[in-house]
Amino acid sequence: MEEREHAVGKSVKRVDAFEKVTGRAKYTDDLCDKSAYVVRILHSTVAHGIVKSVDASEAEKIPGVVKVVTCFDVPKNYFPTAGHPWSTEPAHQDVADRLLLQEHVKFYGDDVAAVVAENEVAAAQAVRAMKVEYEELPFVLDVQKAMEDTAPQIHEEYPNNILKHTTIRNGSYEEARKEPGLIKVEGWYDTPTVQHCHIENFICYAYMEQGRIVVVSSTQIPHICRRVVGQALGIPWGKVRVIKPYIGGGFGNKQDILYEPLCAYLSTVVGGRLVKLDVSREETFVSNRVRHAVRTHIISYVRPDGSFAARKIECFSDQGAYASHGHSIAAKGLGAFPQLYPCPNVDGDAYTVFTNKPVSGAMRGYGIPQAMFALESHTDDVAKAVGMSPYEFRWKYLMPVGYTDGFSKNVNYYDTFHQCMEKGKAYIDYDRKVKEYENQTGEVRKGIGVAAFWYNTGVWPISLETSSCRMVLNQDGSIQVQVGETEIGQGADTAFAQMAAETLGIPVDQVHVMTVQDTDITPFGTGAYASRQTYMAGFSINQTAALLKSHILDTAQELTRHTKESLDIINGKIIRRGDGEVLMSLADLAMEKLYSLTNNGHLTAESTYQAKTNAYSFGCTFAEVEVDIPACRAELTNIINVHDCGQLINPSLALAQVHGGMSMGIGYGLTERLIFDEKTGKPLNNNLLDYKLSTFMDHPHLEGQFVENYEPTSAYGTKALGEPPVCSVAPAIRNAVLQATGVAVDEIPLTPHILFKRFKEEGLV
Amino acid sequence: MEEREHAVGKSVKRVDAFEKVTGRAKYTDDLCDKSAYVVRILHSTVAHGIVKSVDASEAEKIPGVVKVVTCFDVPKNYFPTAGHPWSTEPAHQDVADRLLLQEHVKFYGDDVAAVVAENEVAAAQAVRAMKVEYEELPFVLDVQKAMEDTAPQIHEEYPNNILKHTTIRNGSYEEARKEPGLIKVEGWYDTPTVQHCHIENFICYAYMEQGRIVVVSSTQIPHICRRVVGQALGIPWGKVRVIKPYIGGGFGNKQDILYEPLCAYLSTVVGGRLVKLDVSREETFVSNRVRHAVRTHIISYVRPDGSFAARKIECFSDQGAYASHGHSIAAKGLGAFPQLYPCPNVDGDAYTVFTNKPVSGAMRGYGIPQAMFALESHTDDVAKAVGMSPYEFRWKYLMPVGYTDGFSKNVNYYDTFHQCMEKGKAYIDYDRKVKEYENQTGEVRKGIGVAAFWYNTGVWPISLETSSCRMVLNQDGSIQVQVGETEIGQGADTAFAQMAAETLGIPVDQVHVMTVQDTDITPFGTGAYASRQTYMAGFSINQTAALLKSHILDTAQELTRHTKESLDIINGKIIRRGDGEVLMSLADLAMEKLYSLTNNGHLTAESTYQAKTNAYSFGCTFAEVEVDIPACRAELTNIINVHDCGQLINPSLALAQVHGGMSMGIGYGLTERLIFDEKTGKPLNNNLLDYKLSTFMDHPHLEGQFVENYEPTSAYGTKALGEPPVCSVAPAIRNAVLQATGVAVDEIPLTPHILFKRFKEEGLV
Repeated sequence: MEEREHAVGKSVKRVDAFEKVTGRAKYTDDLCDKSAYVVRILHSTVAHGIVKSVDASEAEKIPGVVKVVTCFDVPKNYFPTAGHPWSTEPAHQDVADRLLLQEHVKFYGDDVAAVVAENEVAAAQAVRAMKVEYEELPFVLDVQKAMEDTAPQIHEEYPNNILKHTTIRNGSYEEARKEPGLIKVEGWYDTPTVQHCHIENFICYAYMEQGRIVVVSSTQIPHICRRVVGQALGIPWGKVRVIKPYIGGGFGNKQDILYEPLCAYLSTVVGGRLVKLDVSREETFVSNRVRHAVRTHIISYVRPDGSFAARKIECFSDQGAYASHGHSIAAKGLGAFPQLYPCPNVDGDAYTVFTNKPVSGAMRGYGIPQAMFALESHTDDVAKAVGMSPYEFRWKYLMPVGYTDGFSKNVNYYDTFHQCMEKGKAYIDYDRKVKEYENQTGEVRKGIGVAAFWYNTGVWPISLETSSCRMVLNQDGSIQVQVGETEIGQGADTAFAQMAAETLGIPVDQVHVMTVQDTDITPFGTGAYASRQTYMAGFSINQTAALLKSHILDTAQELTRHTKESLDIINGKIIRRGDGEVLMSLADLAMEKLYSLTNNGHLTAESTYQAKTNAYSFGCTFAEVEVDIPACRAELTNIINVHDCGQLINPSLALAQVHGGMSMGIGYGLTERLIFDEKTGKPLNNNLLDYKLSTFMDHPHLEGQFVENYEPTSAYGTKALGEPPVCSVAPAIRNAVLQATGVAVDEIPLTPHILFKRFKEEGLV
Repeated sequence: MEEREHAVGKSVKRVDAFEKVTGRAKYTDDLCDKSAYVVRILHSTVAHGIVKSVDASEAEKIPGVVKVVTCFDVPKNYFPTAGHPWSTEPAHQDVADRLLLQEHVKFYGDDVAAVVAENEVAAAQAVRAMKVEYEELPFVLDVQKAMEDTAPQIHEEYPNNILKHTTIRNGSYEEARKEPGLIKVEGWYDTPTVQHCHIENFICYAYMEQGRIVVVSSTQIPHICRRVVGQALGIPWGKVRVIKPYIGGGFGNKQDILYEPLCAYLSTVVGGRLVKLDVSREETFVSNRVRHAVRTHIISYVRPDGSFAARKIECFSDQGAYASHGHSIAAKGLGAFPQLYPCPNVDGDAYTVFTNKPVSGAMRGYGIPQAMFALESHTDDVAKAVGMSPYEFRWKYLMPVGYTDGFSKNVNYYDTFHQCMEKGKAYIDYDRKVKEYENQTGEVRKGIGVAAFWYNTGVWPISLETSSCRMVLNQDGSIQVQVGETEIGQGADTAFAQMAAETLGIPVDQVHVMTVQDTDITPFGTGAYASRQTYMAGFSINQTAALLKSHILDTAQELTRHTKESLDIINGKIIRRGDGEVLMSLADLAMEKLYSLTNNGHLTAESTYQAKTNAYSFGCTFAEVEVDIPACRAELTNIINVHDCGQLINPSLALAQVHGGMSMGIGYGLTERLIFDEKTGKPLNNNLLDYKLSTFMDHPHLEGQFVENYEPTSAYGTKALGEPPVCSVAPAIRNAVLQATGVAVDEIPLTPHILFKRFKEEGLV
């Protein structure tokens, strides 16, 4: 009698642990043959202008230079770069505003020309030897100034540089705010331009094979990359093959198509030779993607009991020079406001605005960290205005059980916010400390802050949600699993292995997940984004494992002469349901089926799952700070994130995700900001020395806890976890500083420069 | 109205033509990272003996030497090496007589120890620095001497060194030969040990990943290789992954598992590091596999009209030191005798006998070139004895239409032998020249010879015949095709593309065949051997394309609202059968299906086809020679092969196969033989300088012609072509020399040494 051992809900070791700690895992650069030609890009040194000429004559004389391609040479196929599922309806397609190289340069760092050379040195020398003549144009760096009528127009088609403007009009804000006795609370909240800072800079290489172009890329989205390369080169998409090896982090930057099309094109102009394009850290900061800086204006009309009567929100999202993910981020952020603290009368406006700055794209949290900084900072301001504690206010007004979003159909099934907040409060000893910190007067003061968030899972109903899976049974009863969803460092492959093992009824170590995606053979799936991996791949893994199990039990019926319905697979064995008797091992079945002289077959299954559901993830952060007022320095001393991301597949890996997200949130709140010279638009700290990336040296212990409410729409009870941990960290820190000092600092990061300005305004220094 | 364009029966360009002529195709060595440790093997320098000790102390001191492994260290898992489909029945499994390294060495060149080093130089120095102490044993090189009771016993389990002995007893030879008036014709026929001499020597590399062993190998049989590596290392087969890149020829040598298990094992003893094992040309000749030298004794009792009354055949097949493919080759050769010229009374005996020589394995023709040399030489002797012309004799007595083989169920459906012979006769102007050459007396004489053959296709009913295929539809209506059958230079991928295009109804250039097999993801198929590629993969491609087409037409019904039955795919378009009207392109259908927000799915199909049929291929060679009697030199001046291999998928590629096989047959008949020192067993010409490989410099124009009789058991009307072209060349040359000189030379190759001996015996010199 066999007892079923579960594969999910356990902290099994990462499938790639050994490879990664030993340095044996092969990343893109490890795989690229040393014979590759190398590419260097000549970037714009003006923030806005027209390239009049590029003189490459000196560059071409440098030994080792193979080819120089300029903005005047490239095909005129405009293409979109956002890593979104394609839509066959033009109205829902991403904005196609990119060419491989640009004559009309729109930011300091834009792409003007490229050199293909036999080696790095020749390529770098050639870039320096090229002379570009620009017609300089006025430029604009501030998102609201860019909307003024006098601002320089960056894209012809977009007056006032507004890429898109969307609104929310719930109830009547204007009528509702006339209710007598309301308290008005107003604030402007500013979040910075930050960069993902994944360890592995973007890299790809390309070559031609059998008349097709093969691109090996450190991308989160191989199947989408195939499509965009096809669009950019103007060739059928089946002529493009994209392979994704192990990748060293992406965080959304690699959910954009970066230089894969350029690299592919450059291979075609050198006869299909192998061409490698990797970018430096400096280029990663400026010429890849950044997080949208968003300025948010909130007005709340609140009753004395704290309930909202009317609210108005305006978001100004700094898109930078090209559309990339476009308005999606601002729209998602705006959409978050009316839901977290439901209010019947809401006016919302979100503007996504071009500026002459690096291009904003996807980044972990996708608009929600910005929205939560504004909203949860504002929530503390409101609580203060009505004399409630921040905890008490949230306890009372956060999205209640049963709340349903009419658009996504998401439901708050459980009393999750209260569960999460109670765990956080207990861990940080909130009640005692808040009281203790109430009346401080010294130079160094302590404070505790709290902030909450919600985050949805995947992109339905905005876009297509689909995942496909293939499984192959081996002679020893082990299987291979292929999905289009990608391991990018987060541990997805391990979760996939656990889910497959769970449904099929075999031990986890009998599941071999194919970590390399190859668009020629990997079943179609859209990749790693929108915290969709476990939720979406879960569906297709579940469905495909069930299909494979059905095939196996058909064979088991043939071989054991028990009815299929009376059989099951437990721990890699075919058992009889009635008494749990083991009839044969899966390995014996696989051998017999594969080598049968009477009825042979190899057992595989493949299927696509299209999801038409979504799921809310929830959570909160409690942060404790010590503020040195004369030094204008806030130090984080204690922090906890509590998450409800449904059932955990692998608690250790889930916790690792939380730790990573918290670290990113701490940097967002305290140190990170990409800054630009106002006179030239030139980035001033595009390197890891001057850009103060948060590291574990800067953190206290990062506590992560979970509330495991089984998500009813999900194949394994899971929902979003990848992005949520970053969402509520910065406002919790800001609110802790508010508690410590009484000063609301509405601009992050809370660097000494900004604290000094605010402390001075408030008379503390 | 769309007219269907056929994809088969056309000489489309090879899918890998550009890659191969430009040198861009990546072979195993091209793919191996330069950081690999390298392996060198220490081979036995005695023909038979026991290794008493290996002193590696000096070797281990050499800088760069990482590890020395000797025959005393390796696991004691005996494994078979033959590239046969596995049988779950022990009685049908190949002989498992190999270890990774041998204490009991059985031929000069056997594997004693291996060195893993950081570079080639250190590895080579270490091999030289090792001291091996042998207990030398007597050895035997001649196949019949090895059967004597006094011969040294090479494998304990096999008395008289007989690996296997099988018999044919049809009717009664002893009774039938008593018939009055019979003419007795008797001969002994000797074929040499030859080697495949593929351009790319054997090479593989191995490393560990996620607790599994990955082997990249120049093998014809990746899925079988996975199994054998598992057996040799004593690990579950699913823990092994085998990848086959482009390979530079195999001809059966790479249908054996050569050093993949040793290489895999050596990786495991250096912590899973990347380890490369390639072999030199010298090792390829001796320590890989060779073609079985077979000595054949035939006695025919013939009536004056040429009809056979009784026949006796004895074959002595020189297996060399290990079983490898074992008795299969001799058994296949013996089986050929009673069929080509049916005779009711046949006694046949085939012996496969161990000798202290390199191991014989599979080689193009698999016993039939040996059998045809004996049989078709003997046939000319018989014709001469009864006063018939060789052509007339064959015309009258070759296997007639309707002949059925009781075992394989093969049927000679057409009058194929007469069709082939007529074409050959016409091309070579047989009647006129035979007459002209009848009474020559000069020093230089001309002659024409003819020989025929049959060859079956695949291995059913002896073994499992199975092929699996997977197809994936892309957005542009193109597809990928994956099969386990392997491109090894013969052009299989191109034929696969044509067959897939034909059944699916798309242009050939819309089919992308995955040339790299990877046992983790490539559907199960047993590989390239037994001339099975087009026949067997044809079944699974046909079946899978039909399945994919069915899925596509289901979608077409959804999208066009025409019934599935009324729709078809022609030239990549969905058409209405009734009037041929184009309703939509396959690309539009694929796009809609993949990105549909209502009912999305990626269209793929995968299936296994198990064949339970076989098919005869037929053909003949006409050769014309000029013999310089004093110089004892036979020069081939004209040659034609005519083949019935069913319908041609790609005439140009079929012709290329014929050219290659003819070249190999010419070398077999005229120049090639691996020779051994009788005192030591040491090979004397194991290099391409001393071994006279036939090249195009040695050939006249090679004429190949076809008779295209549609094979009724086959998915595309095809049958064996890969091996047949080599089968009848050597006896045709021998028979031409016979016509020119009147001397029957019954030992090949017909070198001056052998001609001198025979001409001297016959008084010509």
